[in-house]
Amino acid sequence: MRKLIMLAVLFFISVNLLAQNEDSVFIRSIANEILINGKAYDNLHYLTKKIGGRLSGSPGMVNAEKWGLKTMQESGADKAWLQECMVPHWVRGGKDEAEAKYNGTAKKTLHVTALGNSIGTGGKEVKANVIEVKNFDDLEAKKDELKDKIVFYNYHFNPTFIQTFWSYGDAVRYREFGASRAAKYGAVAVIVRSMTHSTDNFPHTGAMEYDSVYPKIPAAAIGLQDADWLNDQLQKTSVKISLTTFAHFLPDTIGHNVIGELTGSEFPDEFITIGGHLDSWDLAEGAHDDGTGVTQTIEILRAFKSLGYKPKHSIRFVLFMNEENGLRGGTKYAEEAKAKNEKHIFAMESDAGGFTPRGFSFGGSAAQLEKVRNWTSLLLPYGVYQITRGGGGADISPLSKTFGTPVSELNPDSQRYFDYHHAANDVFENVNKRELNLGAINMAAFIYLVDKYGL
Amino acid sequence: MRKLIMLAVLFFISVNLLAQNEDSVFIRSIANEILINGKAYDNLHYLTKKIGGRLSGSPGMVNAEKWGLKTMQESGADKAWLQECMVPHWVRGGKDEAEAKYNGTAKKTLHVTALGNSIGTGGKEVKANVIEVKNFDDLEAKKDELKDKIVFYNYHFNPTFIQTFWSYGDAVRYREFGASRAAKYGAVAVIVRSMTHSTDNFPHTGAMEYDSVYPKIPAAAIGLQDADWLNDQLQKTSVKISLTTFAHFLPDTIGHNVIGELTGSEFPDEFITIGGHLDSWDLAEGAHDDGTGVTQTIEILRAFKSLGYKPKHSIRFVLFMNEENGLRGGTKYAEEAKAKNEKHIFAMESDAGGFTPRGFSFGGSAAQLEKVRNWTSLLLPYGVYQITRGGGGADISPLSKTFGTPVSELNPDSQRYFDYHHAANDVFENVNKRELNLGAINMAAFIYLVDKYGL
Repeated sequence: MRKLIMLAVLFFISVNLLAQNEDSVFIRSIANEILINGKAYDNLHYLTKKIGGRLSGSPGMVNAEKWGLKTMQESGADKAWLQECMVPHWVRGGKDEAEAKYNGTAKKTLHVTALGNSIGTGGKEVKANVIEVKNFDDLEAKKDELKDKIVFYNYHFNPTFIQTFWSYGDAVRYREFGASRAAKYGAVAVIVRSMTHSTDNFPHTGAMEYDSVYPKIPAAAIGLQDADWLNDQLQKTSVKISLTTFAHFLPDTIGHNVIGELTGSEFPDEFITIGGHLDSWDLAEGAHDDGTGVTQTIEILRAFKSLGYKPKHSIRFVLFMNEENGLRGGTKYAEEAKAKNEKHIFAMESDAGGFTPRGFSFGGSAAQLEKVRNWTSLLLPYGVYQITRGGGGADISPLSKTFGTPVSELNPDSQRYFDYHHAANDVFENVNKRELNLGAINMAAFIYLVDKYGL
Repeated sequence: MRKLIMLAVLFFISVNLLAQNEDSVFIRSIANEILINGKAYDNLHYLTKKIGGRLSGSPGMVNAEKWGLKTMQESGADKAWLQECMVPHWVRGGKDEAEAKYNGTAKKTLHVTALGNSIGTGGKEVKANVIEVKNFDDLEAKKDELKDKIVFYNYHFNPTFIQTFWSYGDAVRYREFGASRAAKYGAVAVIVRSMTHSTDNFPHTGAMEYDSVYPKIPAAAIGLQDADWLNDQLQKTSVKISLTTFAHFLPDTIGHNVIGELTGSEFPDEFITIGGHLDSWDLAEGAHDDGTGVTQTIEILRAFKSLGYKPKHSIRFVLFMNEENGLRGGTKYAEEAKAKNEKHIFAMESDAGGFTPRGFSFGGSAAQLEKVRNWTSLLLPYGVYQITRGGGGADISPLSKTFGTPVSELNPDSQRYFDYHHAANDVFENVNKRELNLGAINMAAFIYLVDKYGL
């Protein structure tokens, strides 16, 4: 009996080792295909340099959708289509400007950018004395001094978080909610220290939202060097800022998710989704946010097709529209899936930059997490060493909410992400080809394992 | 008895947990000190922008040595001094130029750089038809066609190695030994495809050496775009290249290692060495190679001092001279240590770029490797997840050879390193402040653990 158990154990170990070996060989072939023949970098060059910024409702959005559909088809999708959705249509409307008057007559131009979804000053100067607050507690303490002022939120990115997304999560509330919190006490505009650790002076935009019970006031972000300068001045003297922005909403318009599909050989009606978002802020080329997720998604399709891989499940490669200021694409994708009663077994997103990969976050049951963690040794040669409990990215969160679908997101190294995030320097030149490809390799490997073994 | 064993085990576990906790708290304080008050980035700015290239024998070398000594003192060294050594004095001597004539009369300027230690053309044109070889086997197969030709080594960096240092290790022999291998068969010069994966056209220099039995011929590296262009042309037509370089050796001169020391409280006569190399190629600012290692080394001194950390062992912070083309500084350091019969218990180097850290290599006994691997969980929060068997970097290899001292090297992510290595774009702007600091944090933590627990 003991011998029999021993034999059974040995058999089990052997089968497992063989499977692991087969998997590592196939993952190596994915890696070689992407490292030798990869098109992600060239595709990213086209998307960033020929199309550029592609905010919902913009001409760039339309061009990006056309390009996405064509590239899905050329990359070997069994089928590819556009999924229509209404999108908000916020426009910057003109050149954001700010000038500080200090020390009586001295003047300084400040580098600012209107926050996404904010209303502008209507092209007129809003001119007011500045009051600096360190955080919301400080705002409340100074609430009687805010009337008719421009409130300057000078909340710093916390440098001691190693994962910079923690610093972002900690600081972003001032961008999101700062305007209405200040408007409540009569402020006429807000200027927010940019959400970044960077050493340069680029202002970083990003979505904000108004609380409908308070007046909507203009809101802008300011570069870090100017933020520090402003802070210095305010220790010494009063500063008056003239802010001119043109931002406003046009009526909602039509946008599209771009979807490519490899149809499953065994379970064509069970779906694995992998994606990034196609829209990007208007200030730059949307390279790391999220041209890299878009081109990695297409690259995985291309590599699977090129290797002749026939997935068991249907795999959807999705370029989501309107992640930045509405999430309408992700919402639409889940709504249509629900209406069609589709079965979604897994979804993954890449929306944290095209940097060297370190891990994945995973949102699913404890048993599923344990299962995917057992795959880490297969990913380790390509730089992924940890799979942590976490969400899957904004665009696939509606799918997760609707169906309880397990989700995952690529976790690249985060040190450089917020140097570029939503700023004018989020350009092609700041993406490294091999780091981009390594992200695609690890995602493809993960998808292959989910397709083969389920969750 | 069983109860007693249980109690002993529990006691052992508790003591260990307490120690681990104490260590993690202290390492967190190192991290906070460096992330909040770090000077490495500012120091790197000075070294790269105010001093710049600092090849052995150059005025930049002398200025860098002075700066290094002053900065060691200002950063809190108990003592700091210069350690003299003779260094080779190779100079580029002028502007490297190459022009290709093809298709009869068409002309194209090629981006080339003389290889370090090579002789130049004496400022005259060496003009000859080009013959391309893929590798040394191909060279041998074509040996009868090489006479009076310029040999073009078009050996590619292997894209399928994930660790780019493997690609470098595989390809660098063409830069190092290509000239003499071709001179053996009568070639008049060699042009080597640059050792890089980069997508730009910068040529990458680096050390070469001649085999004294063959004629010394000029040797240059060519940018990748031009290498690919040359390869294309050679499929279609003959190409004649005019190469003009001015490189030559001046007599050896005096250089210095810069050494700072924190004197040990318990074992002042036992030394831990940590360092990077101060010299750099002349084409650029030597930011990643090795300004980052230099400024990380000084930063660890500054952080220890600032935290009031009193090491048990004496810690030497060493900026080595002449790593790039002679290793005279590293050799001198080991020679003097031997002459003084010093006891060197450990040495660590950072000379693989200031990128986000992933691990350390470690050269020591199996038991020592197991010991340091047990520290990985303390480094994991700061991005280091593996300690692999390997060397410790060139500068501390003489120490290791002389005393059998265990050695280690920081292993940052390697994807971007060879984009900049020995090329004109190895500049300050390509270093990320936080990645630089994370390297210093992990090195400081490792040194702290060696100092506390020994090896």
